[in-house]
Amino acid sequence: MSEKQVKEITSRDVDFAKWYTDVCLKADLVDYSSVKGCMIIRPYGYAIWENIQKELDKKFKETNHQNVYMPLFIPESLLNKEKDHVKGFAPEVAWVTHGGEEELQERLCVRPTSETLFCEHFKNVVKSYRDLPLLYNQWCNVVRWEKTTRPFLRSREFLWQEGHTVHETKEEAQEETLRMLNIYGDFLEDILAVPVIRGRKTEKEKFAGAEATYTVEAMMYNGIAIQSATSHYFGDNFSKAFGVTYLDKENQTKYVYQTSWGFTTRVIGSMIMTHGDDHGLVLPPNIAPIKVVIVPIGKGDTGVLDKSYDIAKDLKLANIETIVDDSEKSPGFRFAENEMKGIPVRVEIGPRDISNNTCVLARRDTLEKKEVSLDNVKEEIIKLLLDIQESLFMKAKIRRDSMIHQASTMDELNDIIEHESGFVEATWCGSMECENKIKELYGITSRCIPFNHEKKSGKCICCGEDADTLVVWGKQY
Amino acid sequence: MSEKQVKEITSRDVDFAKWYTDVCLKADLVDYSSVKGCMIIRPYGYAIWENIQKELDKKFKETNHQNVYMPLFIPESLLNKEKDHVKGFAPEVAWVTHGGEEELQERLCVRPTSETLFCEHFKNVVKSYRDLPLLYNQWCNVVRWEKTTRPFLRSREFLWQEGHTVHETKEEAQEETLRMLNIYGDFLEDILAVPVIRGRKTEKEKFAGAEATYTVEAMMYNGIAIQSATSHYFGDNFSKAFGVTYLDKENQTKYVYQTSWGFTTRVIGSMIMTHGDDHGLVLPPNIAPIKVVIVPIGKGDTGVLDKSYDIAKDLKLANIETIVDDSEKSPGFRFAENEMKGIPVRVEIGPRDISNNTCVLARRDTLEKKEVSLDNVKEEIIKLLLDIQESLFMKAKIRRDSMIHQASTMDELNDIIEHESGFVEATWCGSMECENKIKELYGITSRCIPFNHEKKSGKCICCGEDADTLVVWGKQY
Repeated sequence: MSEKQVKEITSRDVDFAKWYTDVCLKADLVDYSSVKGCMIIRPYGYAIWENIQKELDKKFKETNHQNVYMPLFIPESLLNKEKDHVKGFAPEVAWVTHGGEEELQERLCVRPTSETLFCEHFKNVVKSYRDLPLLYNQWCNVVRWEKTTRPFLRSREFLWQEGHTVHETKEEAQEETLRMLNIYGDFLEDILAVPVIRGRKTEKEKFAGAEATYTVEAMMYNGIAIQSATSHYFGDNFSKAFGVTYLDKENQTKYVYQTSWGFTTRVIGSMIMTHGDDHGLVLPPNIAPIKVVIVPIGKGDTGVLDKSYDIAKDLKLANIETIVDDSEKSPGFRFAENEMKGIPVRVEIGPRDISNNTCVLARRDTLEKKEVSLDNVKEEIIKLLLDIQESLFMKAKIRRDSMIHQASTMDELNDIIEHESGFVEATWCGSMECENKIKELYGITSRCIPFNHEKKSGKCICCGEDADTLVVWGKQY
Repeated sequence: MSEKQVKEITSRDVDFAKWYTDVCLKADLVDYSSVKGCMIIRPYGYAIWENIQKELDKKFKETNHQNVYMPLFIPESLLNKEKDHVKGFAPEVAWVTHGGEEELQERLCVRPTSETLFCEHFKNVVKSYRDLPLLYNQWCNVVRWEKTTRPFLRSREFLWQEGHTVHETKEEAQEETLRMLNIYGDFLEDILAVPVIRGRKTEKEKFAGAEATYTVEAMMYNGIAIQSATSHYFGDNFSKAFGVTYLDKENQTKYVYQTSWGFTTRVIGSMIMTHGDDHGLVLPPNIAPIKVVIVPIGKGDTGVLDKSYDIAKDLKLANIETIVDDSEKSPGFRFAENEMKGIPVRVEIGPRDISNNTCVLARRDTLEKKEVSLDNVKEEIIKLLLDIQESLFMKAKIRRDSMIHQASTMDELNDIIEHESGFVEATWCGSMECENKIKELYGITSRCIPFNHEKKSGKCICCGEDADTLVVWGKQY
């Protein structure tokens, strides 16, 4: 790959979809395979997922969740137990019909999600109020037979975690649902620097089988929404379908209340589409597998290499993942390659720097360069990493906020859809008819009812009737 | 569950198979599901697997391996590319034939192992000697359609890691194969306290598509072998079938040399069957999710509870995972329950202990008790944990060694098979005919050719011809 090739990616303002695919491939995050709609996650992409897992898993364990593992397959009869659930998932599942040479008596679905398996297990292990709450999570692969696929965003197989919890009371289950949604929201904002709108899904958009679905919605650079994680309150829908009961303190048989919540590899796509630019990937320092790359220039007998490795050693001791890129390629090529990979900070160091006791720090987000003294390079890098993390979030938030529009009539909505990209806020009467009409007319769906705007009086933008709900509308991936 | 029920497991000397299943279920490691042949790994079982993953993953990363993720599905045509490989696996794969409502044009196999997918990817990404070696690993689930299944040991779906590496030379690939085998062997012995015989598989027993397969073989309490991990040297078998080539320094196109190696959840079964006893599970301290359980006895206003939590706090600060079991159940019940779970050390503390400034330490492996001063309880526990780890290994090793028999004639072999359990060492001419005959007559297979005995001159135990190879034979799970 030449320097030119590294740099040659489609501009995100020219063709955003092409730009996205270019970045995923050229930053070595993924590769295609002969399995249609499934992706290979390469080492650099997987290292990002490992960092996500590590951070989220810590949060789950701090809130007393335990990891388990359920089977990959679900017998068709088990999937059929909760009516809404099966209706939602059956059209997009992969079916195993043969084991070895033999046809199976009952076909097995490759899990698209594991509510049914968890419920069956809960029925076995939950006996009394003393067994509750049960706070389970699993990290695994799931399969959904999508027609159109795209790396990370939508693939037939993806990786995720799915939490499944069982509680004595409604209140406790509802509290858990929101606790996990906020863990997701905080993680997206604090670690991935992706600002999100937290809210509730409408009836139409909620999870198949849930009583309420909560979501964190992010807006990509091109104004399109990504539902970045969801948390569901099931009430006793599943426990009634599966017969999950417990004996309470008064020895009465009661149905349990349940939740589930999930976070997937698609969020890597959210992050790329929020921060990336025409030079490639831009990674927030809090998630970057490599935080600093040191590029020695003009090596020979000048002390440049030694100094580079000294700095790297110092940074590693401070738990800052650092590499030295001392390949034979030209400095320009190495700069371009490391920019493509989104490494937050580049240290450039040449013979003249050594004599001046300086080096140059280049930040990936703004591409600005700054000369610093070698005496306090570590401190400068630590400051810079913090600054990049915060700047990425602020920049994304300002941009997103500038792309949230308000409409109070269908004409205004029409005008916004024609001339702007991004989200639209509008009051809504609550009827599915109006929701469907807006989708048909403009191709936008209700992203969520944001928490801070749940009660907002006005007129429904569609039918003009009294409305008390504010909805954020937008196009979605 | 009453105290009696906890204790009521089949004795391992009466019915070892039943004992094993009892332990897996009663120690809350696994549960059955309606998916035939697939198991649910419960929190306590999964915590053991997480500890295994953490430790092995560290070793892989220290030896410069990178994690990746390949698709779950393999198109039938891709699986068919390496002839021996497909012959070995096709009879036991699960086939996906439908996605949603539609029949697939080509059926997909649920991965039983991922050589084919890795090779296809390697063909894409390996161009020049500068790209080599590629040292990849993935943690995932795999499926093999087994007829008879048993928790951990043999299930239709299991969890594992599979390493796949690509090298310029034979020597480098062979070195890698043995490096990884020794990482497995050391892990089994040092962490799981399971003594193993390291060696090479015969041609008959090697992996489908490999040039050589190396193994670590463990002997269970009942004398039956478990192949606990394997490492394969592929030569250029797969690279020729898949066309994986690189340009060497002289710009010549060369085929790469490859390896693969795997470690699965079945090893949890090995560990249970090596150390467990009639009271349940026995976990080596180096892998136990909980190392110490503190059981306060006769609580009330006696300072017992406070002291229990003080000790727990101290131990946790020293990174020793500790729980306080202060449930309302009787001490006897709690003792039995924690013994079933194999927690290495139990601390018993009652009001009289408080006044005497002592407590009792009970070790799970020997069930011995010892009174110690509360002043140095932490130091005593640390010593005890080290001692338990070492004792478990030594005990297992002495037992295993006492169950390895030597035979130099078929009569001797016959005699051993009739009266003893365990392994048999015998010299072998190297012909598959003799190997098959021994299997047919006695139901034993060649476990491996141990490294320290590869050259051993004598007569073949079967045909009487000259032999220069020592083989360890045994029944296997």
